[in-house]
Amino acid sequence: MEINGVEIEDTFAEAFGIQVSRLLVTAATKKLAKIAATEATGYGTSVIGCPAEAGIDRYVPPEETPDGRPGYIIMICNMNKGKLDHELLERVGMCILTAATTAVFDALDDEEEKLKTGQKLKFFGDGYEKKLEVAGRTIFSIPLMSGDFLIEGELGIKSGVAGGNIFILAENQAAGLLAAEVAVDAIDNVPGTITPFPGGIVASGSKVGSNKYKFLGASTNEKMCVTLKDEVEDTQIPADVNGVYEIVIDGVDEESVRAATKAAVEAAVKVPGVLKISAGNFGGDLGAYKIALHDLF
Amino acid sequence: MEINGVEIEDTFAEAFGIQVSRLLVTAATKKLAKIAATEATGYGTSVIGCPAEAGIDRYVPPEETPDGRPGYIIMICNMNKGKLDHELLERVGMCILTAATTAVFDALDDEEEKLKTGQKLKFFGDGYEKKLEVAGRTIFSIPLMSGDFLIEGELGIKSGVAGGNIFILAENQAAGLLAAEVAVDAIDNVPGTITPFPGGIVASGSKVGSNKYKFLGASTNEKMCVTLKDEVEDTQIPADVNGVYEIVIDGVDEESVRAATKAAVEAAVKVPGVLKISAGNFGGDLGAYKIALHDLF
Amino acid sequence: MEINGVEIEDTFAEAFGIQVSRLLVTAATKKLAKIAATEATGYGTSVIGCPAEAGIDRYVPPEETPDGRPGYIIMICNMNKGKLDHELLERVGMCILTAATTAVFDALDDEEEKLKTGQKLKFFGDGYEKKLEVAGRTIFSIPLMSGDFLIEGELGIKSGVAGGNIFILAENQAAGLLAAEVAVDAIDNVPGTITPFPGGIVASGSKVGSNKYKFLGASTNEKMCVTLKDEVEDTQIPADVNGVYEIVIDGVDEESVRAATKAAVEAAVKVPGVLKISAGNFGGDLGAYKIALHDLF
Amino acid sequence: MEINGVEIEDTFAEAFGIQVSRLLVTAATKKLAKIAATEATGYGTSVIGCPAEAGIDRYVPPEETPDGRPGYIIMICNMNKGKLDHELLERVGMCILTAATTAVFDALDDEEEKLKTGQKLKFFGDGYEKKLEVAGRTIFSIPLMSGDFLIEGELGIKSGVAGGNIFILAENQAAGLLAAEVAVDAIDNVPGTITPFPGGIVASGSKVGSNKYKFLGASTNEKMCVTLKDEVEDTQIPADVNGVYEIVIDGVDEESVRAATKAAVEAAVKVPGVLKISAGNFGGDLGAYKIALHDLF
Repeated sequence: MEINGVEIEDTFAEAFGIQVSRLLVTAATKKLAKIAATEATGYGTSVIGCPAEAGIDRYVPPEETPDGRPGYIIMICNMNKGKLDHELLERVGMCILTAATTAVFDALDDEEEKLKTGQKLKFFGDGYEKKLEVAGRTIFSIPLMSGDFLIEGELGIKSGVAGGNIFILAENQAAGLLAAEVAVDAIDNVPGTITPFPGGIVASGSKVGSNKYKFLGASTNEKMCVTLKDEVEDTQIPADVNGVYEIVIDGVDEESVRAATKAAVEAAVKVPGVLKISAGNFGGDLGAYKIALHDLF
Repeated sequence: MEINGVEIEDTFAEAFGIQVSRLLVTAATKKLAKIAATEATGYGTSVIGCPAEAGIDRYVPPEETPDGRPGYIIMICNMNKGKLDHELLERVGMCILTAATTAVFDALDDEEEKLKTGQKLKFFGDGYEKKLEVAGRTIFSIPLMSGDFLIEGELGIKSGVAGGNIFILAENQAAGLLAAEVAVDAIDNVPGTITPFPGGIVASGSKVGSNKYKFLGASTNEKMCVTLKDEVEDTQIPADVNGVYEIVIDGVDEESVRAATKAAVEAAVKVPGVLKISAGNFGGDLGAYKIALHDLF
Repeated sequence: MEINGVEIEDTFAEAFGIQVSRLLVTAATKKLAKIAATEATGYGTSVIGCPAEAGIDRYVPPEETPDGRPGYIIMICNMNKGKLDHELLERVGMCILTAATTAVFDALDDEEEKLKTGQKLKFFGDGYEKKLEVAGRTIFSIPLMSGDFLIEGELGIKSGVAGGNIFILAENQAAGLLAAEVAVDAIDNVPGTITPFPGGIVASGSKVGSNKYKFLGASTNEKMCVTLKDEVEDTQIPADVNGVYEIVIDGVDEESVRAATKAAVEAAVKVPGVLKISAGNFGGDLGAYKIALHDLF
Repeated sequence: MEINGVEIEDTFAEAFGIQVSRLLVTAATKKLAKIAATEATGYGTSVIGCPAEAGIDRYVPPEETPDGRPGYIIMICNMNKGKLDHELLERVGMCILTAATTAVFDALDDEEEKLKTGQKLKFFGDGYEKKLEVAGRTIFSIPLMSGDFLIEGELGIKSGVAGGNIFILAENQAAGLLAAEVAVDAIDNVPGTITPFPGGIVASGSKVGSNKYKFLGASTNEKMCVTLKDEVEDTQIPADVNGVYEIVIDGVDEESVRAATKAAVEAAVKVPGVLKISAGNFGGDLGAYKIALHDLF
């Protein structure tokens, strides 16, 4: 299958179940909301080594937020509900409550469960906290040095999907990188999804385990390394490919991850020098979701 | 004592010992280096609840870096060497190695010890990693999908100082916030220091423990809360103060934290509406360092 | 009249007719589109001294543009059609055609006239230009060193409104500045409007002519200068006001300027330290439009 | 000649004399200084169609500026002194004086002449302006709505050099674009130089006149157009080149332009996919300066 002259490999992305939270972080200005959202979602590329997978979903203009201020929706995810509970508490408490002029609201429509993040953080008020209603929501107001921090009492979580992905194979690193940036711009507009890696782009693909070092849980996928294509016998890198980047997508459900994957492919193939689109999987036995690239079109 | 007509309170900031690492993250472009540096230093405001204290120290132009590419120096800190070792491994491995076109070099001149971050991460290469010399440094080259990631074998750590701080008391929130931004701009240029909170600014000060909730380790410092000044009897907020922000400073040594504190005070007092500069301490019994504001001038 | 405890003065903004163009600038990435849009709308605060009034209206995501790439809508305005024709030609030809990967499309729905900007710029192709249809539009493709530049043959213009405005009076400069930023964030989302001054904010208000220097067409409005309030007898600055900023709004029609003015007032009054909202006029004899603040609510 | 395996063509950039001004724009914050500097240097890519060539030279930290605030040095250039005088007056008066919290200082060490920009703009104060000494400079303070605007009375100009350039020929557009960004990052650090085109990058090269349209002063350089390489008989585009970008450099003197050109070449050749570096000239008869690429190394 080809789109815009670029081969779309007949393969699938293997994705996994994950517990997802989705919060709206508002502030006095768009810039201040972005600062808090960025700090709270940092160190959150993959649960392989980070305490969460996290990212910014989208900007929400003032007239669409409960407090009439500009905001960013962020997503914070973990496989484990207990760990997600901890991450919400610390990321909100240490990175948003501490940030200038912020407030936090739940932004999940169809939650399966509620975590009591706000009800726990309110204790920081040491008895001076207050319970309010804002736009029909139960909110706690916690007095701080700089003013009051508002947070919704409960934040929803639900079963979402992590590890949706595409591989962009290009004739050089620059074309792969530009196509990846183009793809991330396209995903930006798909609600309910994030691309948790730095700038949305992954430079390194890994395989499960290691051939040489038995103590490793994951190691470089040598068959997909462009600088090893002449060295590794069963390389999967075509001779004319010299740059490969991956986009990893987490979403609130399979549908949103599929929509983001489709948008990413359609955007990436527009960049001259992109030769092939593929996806990463582990044979299909590990993940609950299989997103076949050809099925998207 | 007054500077520019603003009262500088006769008090001191109480700071603590912390283990500090300082890394240079380079990339093909200034923008790509910033993306990696930001991801790796996120979720890093305070070790009270974050797994590290982390931030960007400064930009380094291409002609001053070992690989001739633009870069940012970042600092990652933890009280505990074992935890710092873990954080370096995961923050570099998950947030910089995975980012497009990056490399990592040690940026500490006077380390007391070396952590083997690069020597451990090299195993990700599954035998395809290579040892190189770059500008007199021992570097490992790890093949990735997108090309090779370079990292120095050992990264230095040393005993540094955390929790240097000033309080900016202003007639309203906006003046406090602008003065805090002005102070962070001034600190930006003091080498060996970071301001780990979101945008460098802290909206919330805390006290040890809680009066009401015995299970809490820290709670809001009600005596410093502007919205409680009429409610709390022994408030420390003057009647005309309606906005208070704190700047927290971590540094490679006491001297750098003192220089940053001085620069922050001199910058903040220039903003009209700033009424007083103070600092936070716990009576002086907890921290190893006492930075008296009056001694700086 | 008060909103959120802030006095809204019973006055009106006096606005003027202006010829408006509205273009969509797309590029490979959001970042590249922003770079081109910024260059093309620079040096465009007021036709008093700039060759045009210009600014960015809004971001348009890839799936809503004719070429499926991210873009920014910009507006370029001048009182005089001939001068607007010149400005379109030079700003598009020198600042967008020269920028990496860009294309230009008309973004005015209800134009009164068409300027032949694309039909003129196509000659730059020196005979190698081509005529295409893209999404039902007549487009010229002009070969450049880096690839082909696409531009719609004709760009619409219409009679719009310039000089809508509010004054934000605050207890200090910082509160005025923060409120102005908050107001600009709110206007960002009103389609068909721009705030052409730097960052959308005006630090200087002027009066027609000069009392002292007869050769001047405009001079500082001393009655509105905060640092002159004790010196100028008939000052309009209340004793407690120490910072005043203006927002100037241009729009495709009076309705959009009114909507932006309303959004700006509602946003600005939320910032503590804002004491009063006013607006600028010249007695009502000069401009065709009077936007009374009280009528907006 | 080859650097890093990339052919450096044995040719020269032909550059021209131009009148250069160099100003320091300071503000309360780094962000506010950047906003003003950007507005004042917009619509300034080339004097072929823009009223000036203009750009940001470099950031200057607070402790190195006359007023102890962060600032950006900008350069504004024109072939003609009278036009430069006009541009300084309007760009400073309309785009910096009007911007929040700014001040303007001369930043040229070896001026040949002084323009009275500040002495003229002071009249805007309508008699309320004041003359001050700041760090040994004669400064005028002009009262505005938001506070006082400070500007040095005289701004230096000198004979500089415009149109220094390199061409980056790459196997695709993305590699050319990435290399151009890398080159601009490298030039950023050469004091006394700007890259006036959008983002520092030129997508379009032109030749003098036109073969087909006799009324044109300049038209596309079809021999350098990648999409015409199969159509134009005497194309200069090698078969494997599919993306060409140009960097244009203006500087305070030939030495600074040469230093920037050298830094640009050394940076660009590091990007995989870059095949050749060349430069633009008109045979050597038009410009006063010939910067031979091979002489730089």
